[in-house]
Amino acid sequence: MHDLLILGGGPAGYLAAERAAHEGFQTVLFETRALGGVCLNEGCIPSKTLLHSAKIYDYSNGYGAKYGVTCDNARINYDAVITRKNKVVRTLVAGISSRLKTVGVQIVTEHAVIQGRIEGGFAVEAGGLRYEGKKLLLCTGSQVLVPRIDGLDAQLQDGFVLTSREILDLREIPERLVVVGGGVIGLEMSSLFRSLGAKVTVIEMLDKIAGPADAEVSALLQKDLEKRGVTFLLSAKVTSFANGVVRYEQDGVERTLETDKVLLSIGRKPSTDGFGLETLGIVLERGAVKTDDQMKTSVPGVFASGDCNGKSMLAHTAYRESDVAINVMAGQKDTMDYGCVPYVIYTNPEVAGIGETLESARTRGLSAREITLSMRFSGRYLAENEGGGGICKLIVGEDDRLLGVHMIGNPASEIISTASLSLSRALTLDAFKKTVFPHPSVAEILRECAFA
Amino acid sequence: MHDLLILGGGPAGYLAAERAAHEGFQTVLFETRALGGVCLNEGCIPSKTLLHSAKIYDYSNGYGAKYGVTCDNARINYDAVITRKNKVVRTLVAGISSRLKTVGVQIVTEHAVIQGRIEGGFAVEAGGLRYEGKKLLLCTGSQVLVPRIDGLDAQLQDGFVLTSREILDLREIPERLVVVGGGVIGLEMSSLFRSLGAKVTVIEMLDKIAGPADAEVSALLQKDLEKRGVTFLLSAKVTSFANGVVRYEQDGVERTLETDKVLLSIGRKPSTDGFGLETLGIVLERGAVKTDDQMKTSVPGVFASGDCNGKSMLAHTAYRESDVAINVMAGQKDTMDYGCVPYVIYTNPEVAGIGETLESARTRGLSAREITLSMRFSGRYLAENEGGGGICKLIVGEDDRLLGVHMIGNPASEIISTASLSLSRALTLDAFKKTVFPHPSVAEILRECAFA
Repeated sequence: MHDLLILGGGPAGYLAAERAAHEGFQTVLFETRALGGVCLNEGCIPSKTLLHSAKIYDYSNGYGAKYGVTCDNARINYDAVITRKNKVVRTLVAGISSRLKTVGVQIVTEHAVIQGRIEGGFAVEAGGLRYEGKKLLLCTGSQVLVPRIDGLDAQLQDGFVLTSREILDLREIPERLVVVGGGVIGLEMSSLFRSLGAKVTVIEMLDKIAGPADAEVSALLQKDLEKRGVTFLLSAKVTSFANGVVRYEQDGVERTLETDKVLLSIGRKPSTDGFGLETLGIVLERGAVKTDDQMKTSVPGVFASGDCNGKSMLAHTAYRESDVAINVMAGQKDTMDYGCVPYVIYTNPEVAGIGETLESARTRGLSAREITLSMRFSGRYLAENEGGGGICKLIVGEDDRLLGVHMIGNPASEIISTASLSLSRALTLDAFKKTVFPHPSVAEILRECAFA
Repeated sequence: MHDLLILGGGPAGYLAAERAAHEGFQTVLFETRALGGVCLNEGCIPSKTLLHSAKIYDYSNGYGAKYGVTCDNARINYDAVITRKNKVVRTLVAGISSRLKTVGVQIVTEHAVIQGRIEGGFAVEAGGLRYEGKKLLLCTGSQVLVPRIDGLDAQLQDGFVLTSREILDLREIPERLVVVGGGVIGLEMSSLFRSLGAKVTVIEMLDKIAGPADAEVSALLQKDLEKRGVTFLLSAKVTSFANGVVRYEQDGVERTLETDKVLLSIGRKPSTDGFGLETLGIVLERGAVKTDDQMKTSVPGVFASGDCNGKSMLAHTAYRESDVAINVMAGQKDTMDYGCVPYVIYTNPEVAGIGETLESARTRGLSAREITLSMRFSGRYLAENEGGGGICKLIVGEDDRLLGVHMIGNPASEIISTASLSLSRALTLDAFKKTVFPHPSVAEILRECAFA
């Protein structure tokens, strides 16, 4: 009998497998598709690769002039960009595969279905074979949320409407793109395809973009993207899709948009069907596997990490959840703290944040104040972001305890780790004051805020 | 009588003035030139502004092809680049000036000379006026180190040999540039002028570049710069300068290099002359004002921070030293920890580090081990650094205590803050393991190393 059977080889699954092997667990990982899951194969990594090419193209295509650099006939070979993206993905998938093999994880490329409880563990069937394990870890991931909208299914099949998966493999840039959903994925793809020359329109049901991001930050991001030519239709609801046409309702009026392609990016939902979870009576909650802060499900011995528990649906959350799950299985004390999970939007400019906003802190009854500074207080930001109008915001609680950090401005995605470490150690403003940030760096803005 | 007189308005001085005003000190700041000192006016900020333009130019000028982006006739309008650099500097100088005025600091644009001790404090003369202060803070900075080499003085006057100050204001790119000194400034200027098309040769006395940086990191940087076309002459010593010619000795053989310009960048020395330090009998040590870890000099009531104390000669060290000085003056407990000061080399690729190397740790008798990973373990690094060969290295002591971090690869300059915070809080590897780094980010490499 194996020590651990892991269902799913995305970020939650492959990281858990590696950590489990390090703890000495005999581990089997089941994954039918490429290791790395949605994140590596059709999500985070592909999109960041494309966005990087787009950023370079922006510089050649006009932005460089602000920095004294010009050229003629700037062009992007999008076919080469996609080919490079596939190479990056292949390299990383191969890396994961080789690391797992090195530590002795058995990888089974078959779909696994739970058969039931057995003496001292659980049985799983995959590819006609039976596997037995003392513990189970569910890392079954998530899938694109497809709402019931007239004509949607047909247009998805037709290729007029794309999900985040298909859009990353487009070989031609559509002239016009309608993005349904102004969350992280919708905004990143808007930034990408606008850079590539598409006329982009975002339709968002809420009255702001960027979901749970700080309201001021999301307003600045919207302004930045609008300056670049993206159109936003807020408080607007799509009512139907037809070939070449999106119908939506705004202010009680039904309107029509003609477009070449549509990206559907209103969210994702946990994948829980077809794995035999019902055999064990594993409790679901709003379609997600119910877990506690040790990643335990309702069934002793069965854990769940990553998107399938519906908690935060981010790859880095999955990593940490899997750490926690393996630590708990190994008898170490560890708990998951969802308050210390950062978010990033890899638009240009980037947005990143962690922890409370002033609004969320007050909703929770916490005494909190906000310190906001223009990123232009950072000399390096000024040097590298001509005309940039980013901000950095600290949310501070009692005794100067740091409760949240939110920023817009490059490279927020890399700076937010310092905030992440600070929140996870429950530090106060004093930590930023006494840390020597290199000068000049954009990260110094954290220290500037602490002293402001 | 004022509470505090500050001699010098560079990073040490202006930051101290602002902090002192916040503590309620009546403060006078003396500075004859522009606020911001060498760092802001002719050092860190100007060079980073130029390096950013160079990086954008690199992409237009061939590098972009690796990412699918091409163009014709890439050109850099260096005059516009310099003009923009001056604008960035002016904006920041104006910002400092306005902040100091807002908090009530009196700025005197005259050279200040200490007159002596008076009842309850000190007297200073500036522009024919007498100022009295209960305490003194020396922030007199540093100047370019000019060694005694045949022909050097004449060629400096002639403009054949430049220091870091003049080279940042060159309006034309020399065809050939010899850089004397392969430390931070020499390497940054080599990276810059190589990007701009100059044929660059670095002459370095030691057998490695990048001074105290980790040896493996500095070897990788050298390799990267060599790939870009920079030539390195190590263990080589310049013996004389003449018009158009640099003579140097290597392996006991005297050789000659023809060049259009020379950059002299072998270091800086504290500025301590002409401020009347001798009047108070302030003790110097190897040409620097002697200070303890509270920034106190040998004379009670007189403090010194920044380059003039010769401790680390970095702007961010100056900031922290000035924080410490003001905190101590205000009766708060605080001490300077030079072990928690990061270094950055803003070449392309960037180098950054903090704390011990394995070598320095062992020299100090510490039990230490090294964890090194290729930056290619980071998906984002792979996505954004085609062909990049960076590394990240953690130096770990007893009980997994983090002793040092060293890396080469973009954007090391922004990631190192997370390490800096960790070292200053005396954290262990566990902090990196339990922190949720956003995925994908290059910063994740810290977490990868911790688990490796």
